[in-house]
Amino acid sequence: MTEFAPPGTRYCALPLPFAMKRGGALHGARVAYETWGTLAPGADNAVLILTGLSPNAHAASNDGNPEPGWWEAMLGPGKAIDTTRWFVICVNSLGSCKGSTGAASIDPATGEQYRLAFPDLSIEDVARAAHAVVDALGIERLACVIGCSMGGMSALSYIQQFPHGARGHINVSGAAQALPFSIAIRSLQREAIRLDPHWNLGRYDETHYPDAGMRIARKLGVVTYRSALEWHGRFGRVRLDSERREDDPFGLEFEVESYLEGHARRFVRQFDPNCYLYLSRSMDWFDLAEVGGGDILAGLATLRVERTLAIGVATDILFPLQQQEQIAGGLAAGGADAHCLALPSPQGHDAFLVDIERFAPAVAGFLARL
Amino acid sequence: MTEFAPPGTRYCALPLPFAMKRGGALHGARVAYETWGTLAPGADNAVLILTGLSPNAHAASNDGNPEPGWWEAMLGPGKAIDTTRWFVICVNSLGSCKGSTGAASIDPATGEQYRLAFPDLSIEDVARAAHAVVDALGIERLACVIGCSMGGMSALSYIQQFPHGARGHINVSGAAQALPFSIAIRSLQREAIRLDPHWNLGRYDETHYPDAGMRIARKLGVVTYRSALEWHGRFGRVRLDSERREDDPFGLEFEVESYLEGHARRFVRQFDPNCYLYLSRSMDWFDLAEVGGGDILAGLATLRVERTLAIGVATDILFPLQQQEQIAGGLAAGGADAHCLALPSPQGHDAFLVDIERFAPAVAGFLARL
Repeated sequence: MTEFAPPGTRYCALPLPFAMKRGGALHGARVAYETWGTLAPGADNAVLILTGLSPNAHAASNDGNPEPGWWEAMLGPGKAIDTTRWFVICVNSLGSCKGSTGAASIDPATGEQYRLAFPDLSIEDVARAAHAVVDALGIERLACVIGCSMGGMSALSYIQQFPHGARGHINVSGAAQALPFSIAIRSLQREAIRLDPHWNLGRYDETHYPDAGMRIARKLGVVTYRSALEWHGRFGRVRLDSERREDDPFGLEFEVESYLEGHARRFVRQFDPNCYLYLSRSMDWFDLAEVGGGDILAGLATLRVERTLAIGVATDILFPLQQQEQIAGGLAAGGADAHCLALPSPQGHDAFLVDIERFAPAVAGFLARL
Repeated sequence: MTEFAPPGTRYCALPLPFAMKRGGALHGARVAYETWGTLAPGADNAVLILTGLSPNAHAASNDGNPEPGWWEAMLGPGKAIDTTRWFVICVNSLGSCKGSTGAASIDPATGEQYRLAFPDLSIEDVARAAHAVVDALGIERLACVIGCSMGGMSALSYIQQFPHGARGHINVSGAAQALPFSIAIRSLQREAIRLDPHWNLGRYDETHYPDAGMRIARKLGVVTYRSALEWHGRFGRVRLDSERREDDPFGLEFEVESYLEGHARRFVRQFDPNCYLYLSRSMDWFDLAEVGGGDILAGLATLRVERTLAIGVATDILFPLQQQEQIAGGLAAGGADAHCLALPSPQGHDAFLVDIERFAPAVAGFLARL
């Protein structure tokens, strides 16, 4: 199922069979990616971007697709991630439905969609699949691996599994392990999908589709991606005008309700529900303490990377600032030149997508010193 | 429908017709309440407790019902709300299903349950219904009105509608208006119920009941009632043992998931879904700025009460500490001796139910000086 992959997407076949961390293997799997800029003769100017749960590989406009990407303001000629200097790769996570193999893909063994027959997905698998792209492009060592949100987990796993595979690392609102509040939120999002009768144990189709569950999952996501502080200033108690208001005491009445509604409408049929479940659960399972004898700082200290910048914001309730401080602290304990930068963005977890004014100088400054 | 009212519940008929703020009127309506202690001859020792969304009037054990109540540790002989000194009344909110008239009650005009024919419920109606109980008990002026969570809104409305109706006021994790983050959370809880096919526009029965929607609503509630900090220390990443774990990659695996599951199971069939919708929406609509020409502090400053203590905790994401600071500031601007007490409880919005060690001395100290 490639329908959600934007035009211009490129594909990299994974080594076959591709063994999954928690058991099982994929045959004939692939990951989608896009690139910007030119790889230097020594292949020493490559920057890999690993994404959050929902984005595709189209981080910014390029020759293959002139449409703006999800990090358009950050990536391009002369921008913070300057594509006149860096050869940038963005990989769509294994398990996603945006071109990479996932639960919505055809299982070659049966000729049918995997659905719940897809093996358990882990962040470690996502990282290894991204490494396959880097490898196929002839890059032995990245100049930098940048991971945002879930991608921050994938980037740490990349460095853990491929020691010295990257000189630098920027962790943007990421985490080295999932904590119970975030697990609870994601568990609830998954339950909303799984309780939708149209989910039907993963056997939905376009006619019988778990719209209701996906709506709740997305709206709950948006609630946790932003911050109460931002919404207080942005929406306050403003009501919809009478034309947009629903004539129902429980219908859309406040601007904030309409805002969530817009997000849900744009998402529900654009992301495969089963893929959502797999990617969501992979984050719960992620825990670098596993490689540190049960200790998260010890786990981080085993990673080999020269320089790291962990960026976080105090208003993030999903990947709270303490987690970026932990990343910097643990990597520093392992010998890296690692720092944490706390930005005063009001926008919560999503700040890296919108508060470009603060994030761009941080990212540009780090890359300039690499 | 009185099935959810505990034994020993007393009832007070509301004046008929009981006009509702947003239109419509109730005929033959009543509110449930319980009392503790003895009313002094001058009727000057009465303390009224107004509750959050879900509790009944059984705040503590008493002659009518020896079972522990929802604030058992706070209320009784020698406790913070000392029933040897105070005559305490706890009222079940109008619109609830715990004995008071609400959407689950029989509409005398039709002989059928109101369901969605129940008129719009507002916090102001809840406060006026509570006042009817106080009035029927022969109390002209309360010594203190204590409101927790939603009850903090109801208590402010009580004071607003009945100037000098209370000498003192303790606002526990309450708010003078709903802010967009809380509106968003409640909107999502209501949507989960309304999207459940078994909700059926409010026409469910015991066989076809919106269990799924109520589960999501309750779990989301619990997530926002507690705090990430508390859960980090309490659950960490602890897994269920193999006997309790579900054999499904998306099933119950982490302790925090099992904790939410327990809360959902205990709630789903114990609270009427339509009543939940009405009470939930009443909080969104509440805004004391309405009586302040659009300004919330001006609205609060119109209230007439001698002394006030607003208590909040920094880990509360649903009724954040700034809202209790606002209550104290606005009431002080109106001439009250009003203070805000920020407690370092890690338990978030629910702290007043569990962190008795911190809340009891605060409440006892205020009442002692009344």
